[in-house]
Amino acid sequence: MARVITLTTDFGPADGFPAAMKGVILGISPGAQVVDITHDVPPQGIAHASFVLGAVAPYFPAGSIHVAVVDPGVGTARAALVVRAPDGTLYVGPDDGVFSHVLSAEGPLPWASHGRPFLSPGRGPLPSGFCAWRIESPAFMREEVSRTFHGRDVFAPAAAHLAEGVPPDGMGPGVTEVSCLNLPGPREEGGRLAGHVQHVDRFGNLVTDIPGSRVLQAFRSLEVGGRVIRRLSASYRDAGELGCVVGSHGYLEIASFGQDAAEALGCGVGDEVVVE
Amino acid sequence: MARVITLTTDFGPADGFPAAMKGVILGISPGAQVVDITHDVPPQGIAHASFVLGAVAPYFPAGSIHVAVVDPGVGTARAALVVRAPDGTLYVGPDDGVFSHVLSAEGPLPWASHGRPFLSPGRGPLPSGFCAWRIESPAFMREEVSRTFHGRDVFAPAAAHLAEGVPPDGMGPGVTEVSCLNLPGPREEGGRLAGHVQHVDRFGNLVTDIPGSRVLQAFRSLEVGGRVIRRLSASYRDAGELGCVVGSHGYLEIASFGQDAAEALGCGVGDEVVVE
Amino acid sequence: MARVITLTTDFGPADGFPAAMKGVILGISPGAQVVDITHDVPPQGIAHASFVLGAVAPYFPAGSIHVAVVDPGVGTARAALVVRAPDGTLYVGPDDGVFSHVLSAEGPLPWASHGRPFLSPGRGPLPSGFCAWRIESPAFMREEVSRTFHGRDVFAPAAAHLAEGVPPDGMGPGVTEVSCLNLPGPREEGGRLAGHVQHVDRFGNLVTDIPGSRVLQAFRSLEVGGRVIRRLSASYRDAGELGCVVGSHGYLEIASFGQDAAEALGCGVGDEVVVE
Repeated sequence: MARVITLTTDFGPADGFPAAMKGVILGISPGAQVVDITHDVPPQGIAHASFVLGAVAPYFPAGSIHVAVVDPGVGTARAALVVRAPDGTLYVGPDDGVFSHVLSAEGPLPWASHGRPFLSPGRGPLPSGFCAWRIESPAFMREEVSRTFHGRDVFAPAAAHLAEGVPPDGMGPGVTEVSCLNLPGPREEGGRLAGHVQHVDRFGNLVTDIPGSRVLQAFRSLEVGGRVIRRLSASYRDAGELGCVVGSHGYLEIASFGQDAAEALGCGVGDEVVVE
Repeated sequence: MARVITLTTDFGPADGFPAAMKGVILGISPGAQVVDITHDVPPQGIAHASFVLGAVAPYFPAGSIHVAVVDPGVGTARAALVVRAPDGTLYVGPDDGVFSHVLSAEGPLPWASHGRPFLSPGRGPLPSGFCAWRIESPAFMREEVSRTFHGRDVFAPAAAHLAEGVPPDGMGPGVTEVSCLNLPGPREEGGRLAGHVQHVDRFGNLVTDIPGSRVLQAFRSLEVGGRVIRRLSASYRDAGELGCVVGSHGYLEIASFGQDAAEALGCGVGDEVVVE
Repeated sequence: MARVITLTTDFGPADGFPAAMKGVILGISPGAQVVDITHDVPPQGIAHASFVLGAVAPYFPAGSIHVAVVDPGVGTARAALVVRAPDGTLYVGPDDGVFSHVLSAEGPLPWASHGRPFLSPGRGPLPSGFCAWRIESPAFMREEVSRTFHGRDVFAPAAAHLAEGVPPDGMGPGVTEVSCLNLPGPREEGGRLAGHVQHVDRFGNLVTDIPGSRVLQAFRSLEVGGRVIRRLSASYRDAGELGCVVGSHGYLEIASFGQDAAEALGCGVGDEVVVE
């Protein structure tokens, strides 16, 4: 059975960079099924890519290979990684925090802190069940490796060789610490739950980091950007002018039917939300 | 032979929603060939999606499965449908008018009216040769169905199971009426043909609902937005500053070589055009 | 083994034109692996498409079939071509200069001149090792050929038949001259190298036509738009506010870390750059 390889990048639609990666992949693994997750991550938007990859990867078959290249540090000393999740799914990309949501799927990492969420990558031990290796063996890179496009020269060939059955520990030495954005999750404060906007989708819905399961029983209000919302709706249509919905990612969202809630509220990623 | 599954949505390029659908599809039907028609339908632009799907689907092999998810009513009582066309091609999506052009391929439905074209969905009987079923069997949905993303939880798995050979009448009870935008087509009025702009493409060409076959013999002029065009050209290049062309969809178009005709004229979908 | 067919067009993301091409291809060659290079070439941007195709095609397996449709002259007398490169790779598209960079891969064509780079297509003999044929046989077109969408009616079916093993000389008569943009490359002038910006990528990096190999040994400065840059960096991060990098295409680029260099400099395609 052909292995699925997905691509998540900030390369945009017009320059053909993702296609160069696909050409390299198909040259090494002609039967691979390559699927785009998105190439419209804002330039260098590691937090955006991490969120989208964390949201989408669970819907792919276990054992899929997810390549994420948002790589402002290309050509510097940052490591190239392959990370293996407990279910055998593989993640390939730079060690710059782009796998933060994947690594935090079971909850905030112990070393996450409540200061400066999302934007500051730190380093810490891999969560239990995850393994990672540096991609260093030239045997699995293109013969000439540019200083500016490791997506094509390092990550695409690594993914294709993994798809062809090369084991991840053949790529290079194991590592036990990786870079990770600070994703503290919400904190309880005297009966209130204080979290953050972690993503804004194309409809303008503000996705918080508050799991829907923690509010479905007892939601009284949500405060964001000076506005108080008292409506927890079952659908976007029922959200009306401004309401809360438990969205498809499983998190509490702030939505406006037929409008862009982010624009209407003037809010964005990192802003605080407080739920009672 | 692998079945082709196409996707048409308003999910945009940056959030990974279409990729979640593809992950679900490939988990159920690993050999499916998934093709994007577009994910850049304007948010909740049912008329846009309906036009594009109606224009593109005929070029796919008979028996393809076309999934269209422009779904402002997700989580409400609107039905989920699978529609079978006379040639065996299947259409999967919400019952909100997104299949209007497909259903009107042989001409305006008898219950279309000349008031408020495009924007008002009505309900009426399926045209001859078409069958439809509600998607209701949980066996063909994801185990957990969100209230906000039926593309991933209902329509993608239904399409994948259809690709794997589940017959459409296994999905749920048959229906005989469906929602449809009001697509009246052009009407004759004393030797003149009055129609509408039904789509604006990325080049700014205004696609009318007047079939080219009805004007090729005897075109004298087209009036739109207060301007009269007397040129029926054989190519966009020959259209010059402003001209008419029978476009690739088979309809009369208003085009401007090297310019955006929609912008130049200040016209858009729903505007009336009159041909003599 | 399934043949790879790539698509490069200016059709944009919202109208489904590329999907119509894919439907036609899959109807003729159901096992073809269709890969998008880009559909976001600016409308009628032949130079952009030519650059991207020239940059990406070498990363695909030899024998791939690259279809490029930026076709302002559709429906006029311009020829439809299939071009075979020395390694057996095939290029399918209109004879309007869209293959200029592919044809100039080994260096400027002898008939290129130093006036008006990029924008003026001329005609001249194919470079050594390349062959080309007009696509004229109706057997390999759709039965009805529109005047406005040869991507769907001529180029897609031709590519699919080529993927199925039809030899390129079965498509129509051979030709020895083709259209080509004027790509003079840089010229030496008293120890200085005068070249041009030939592409601006989504990050705002200005890609020149000066090969990195010609400056790596002895770079003193680059002048562009009245600014002098003295830094040749090893990575985008090291480029700082404004620097030069040898980019992934192998050409000297002007970059700004975390900024859009093209915007900051007010420069674009065709602008002169001088390297000392």
